[in-house]
Amino acid sequence: MKIICNQKLLANKIGIVQKAINSKTTLDLLKGVLIVTKQDEIILKGYDLEIGIESHVPAEVIQEGSIVINSKLFGDIIRKLPDSFVEIETDEDNNVYINCLNSKFKIKGDSAKEYPQIPDVNEDKLYSIPQDVLKSMIKQTVFATSQDQTKPILMGELLEIENGNINLVAIDGYRFAVRSCQVDNLIHEDLKAKIIIPGKTLIDVNSLLSSEEEVKVGFNEKNAIFIINDTKIVTRLLEGEFIDYKKLCPREYNSKIKLKTKDLLNSIERASLLSQSEQNNLIKLSIRDSMMAITSNNEKGNVYEEVSLSLEGDYLDIAFNSRYLLEGLKNIDCEEIYIEFTTNVNPCIIKPADGTKYTYLLLPVRISSNN
Amino acid sequence: MKIICNQKLLANKIGIVQKAINSKTTLDLLKGVLIVTKQDEIILKGYDLEIGIESHVPAEVIQEGSIVINSKLFGDIIRKLPDSFVEIETDEDNNVYINCLNSKFKIKGDSAKEYPQIPDVNEDKLYSIPQDVLKSMIKQTVFATSQDQTKPILMGELLEIENGNINLVAIDGYRFAVRSCQVDNLIHEDLKAKIIIPGKTLIDVNSLLSSEEEVKVGFNEKNAIFIINDTKIVTRLLEGEFIDYKKLCPREYNSKIKLKTKDLLNSIERASLLSQSEQNNLIKLSIRDSMMAITSNNEKGNVYEEVSLSLEGDYLDIAFNSRYLLEGLKNIDCEEIYIEFTTNVNPCIIKPADGTKYTYLLLPVRISSNN
Repeated sequence: MKIICNQKLLANKIGIVQKAINSKTTLDLLKGVLIVTKQDEIILKGYDLEIGIESHVPAEVIQEGSIVINSKLFGDIIRKLPDSFVEIETDEDNNVYINCLNSKFKIKGDSAKEYPQIPDVNEDKLYSIPQDVLKSMIKQTVFATSQDQTKPILMGELLEIENGNINLVAIDGYRFAVRSCQVDNLIHEDLKAKIIIPGKTLIDVNSLLSSEEEVKVGFNEKNAIFIINDTKIVTRLLEGEFIDYKKLCPREYNSKIKLKTKDLLNSIERASLLSQSEQNNLIKLSIRDSMMAITSNNEKGNVYEEVSLSLEGDYLDIAFNSRYLLEGLKNIDCEEIYIEFTTNVNPCIIKPADGTKYTYLLLPVRISSNN
Repeated sequence: MKIICNQKLLANKIGIVQKAINSKTTLDLLKGVLIVTKQDEIILKGYDLEIGIESHVPAEVIQEGSIVINSKLFGDIIRKLPDSFVEIETDEDNNVYINCLNSKFKIKGDSAKEYPQIPDVNEDKLYSIPQDVLKSMIKQTVFATSQDQTKPILMGELLEIENGNINLVAIDGYRFAVRSCQVDNLIHEDLKAKIIIPGKTLIDVNSLLSSEEEVKVGFNEKNAIFIINDTKIVTRLLEGEFIDYKKLCPREYNSKIKLKTKDLLNSIERASLLSQSEQNNLIKLSIRDSMMAITSNNEKGNVYEEVSLSLEGDYLDIAFNSRYLLEGLKNIDCEEIYIEFTTNVNPCIIKPADGTKYTYLLLPVRISSNN
């Protein structure tokens, strides 16, 4: 193999495919970036057997071929080279020669023959979502995936397509977050689908979303594909039945409040400084006519906060883990929110007041009356 | 005690005195910030028995008094309060009441009676240095202090005053860095002094230097004081005899080269990616007429770099620990440098070509000829 390409472009694309490379793998070959020549470009691939990322760099291909190069070393070298043209050449012993102006590197590579194949997903049936929409959908839900390795399915998110809507759903034992969006004309009206995508994949996808162009999404039984500009991300899907989150939603409420997101967020952040313990971060809310009192106390002291609101329905005293409440509030961009409660042992629902299709459901903490 | 002051100013000053507070101390009282009222202001103090920092906040003093409040909790509360006026009140049981708009905190404080006194340094005899000059002096030397706890004196820097010059000197076993500056008229011509300031103090001082105003410096046998704007830093001095660094400087050279700082820095950064081992980071320099070859190799591969230079004197092959060479080069702002060598087992000296009074001396690594 012998190619010449631009240092900046190459460094950038190595950074992208490195997201799929797990430097702690025991398989040396998977610590590498696969480089394959193709007409006027080289294709770079990284793959950890769960997520595979493929990207392209325009190149002058002098001699066709392929090679696997340790991803960390290759990335470090290319990033530190001057902004110029880089020549990469290999010999029959898989030595790699990297030359750029006054720098000459010779490093050991590996044959590409044994490098595993990233699964194929049919690219004829792809659906399109604006990048910024998908970005905000992931941001508003992925934090609510479970980190519990014993429940692998909850470490993923449900991507559900129904009635021309896409719903992205994350749930752990204590709360769930659902963000929906209608993608007019782009998704076939009567398409129905449910797939479960690993949370880590969505975080990687999110880090590559930037422009206002569209991201193309496709899937089969086992894998999903995201195409962002000229980068392809293929991910294994999680197998199993996702929790029927719709059943968990209360249909009615006894108390509904409207208040400023920032006011509540700031007060809860302060109250959590004195919340009962690091485990449950207990804070208590007392909802009355035009204001809510937020209280918390531990051995260091106590705190009392007041937040203005408008109430429809009954007075209520209820307690929450402040961390879960904060995570939900931080991911709502809207200036005002509604919160709906039934009783102090049933979940509450937080929604942006501007009509964005986002629901954050949170279980309260049960407290005895003398707590 | 009862006072009212501005939230932003208070939060800012707590951040400053916190630099002197070691949150890992076993003495609970020293985890606290001392607050003392004084006419139209409050004085905040933090002290870890080595470094003490004192700063002032304008305040309406309604009732005089003093209190010690856990620094982390106090800082977190004040920082998260809204930008408004904060009222702080104490009762006879050392409870602290913090009120700001709709927030009310009650936390446990401690009596200020037992709080240790920060040593006094006579403030009548202070010398002045422009803040930006002291900042660059610290930056160019402090990285060369030793981190070896068994040689505590080398964890400090020598501040030497002689002939109207101030020299700041750091030395570990392998290199030293000296930065000098002439402070016209500000320091008494025939003043001579040598004190040893802990490296940690200089890092704290550096983090407070910002404006182009002057910092005032004073010292006695045991302590030094730095006054930056309205903040005082008092530090214990290190005791003992500092190494006579001037004796280590070679007086002559056999080879002197002039080259671009950035060219050398970039080449050595690349070469160090394949330097022999993480311990010695060995790279080899071969100095010839108009260029230097930099080489390095390990089990992953090898690298060859060329840097243009102009040589006065003999050809030379010499090896260095790349980390020490990089640290010196990174702290030279000048576009070009001189490097003077005697032999490949004697220290070399790096100097900026613009005449800034900075010397970085570095010992080479001895290598066998077949290495």
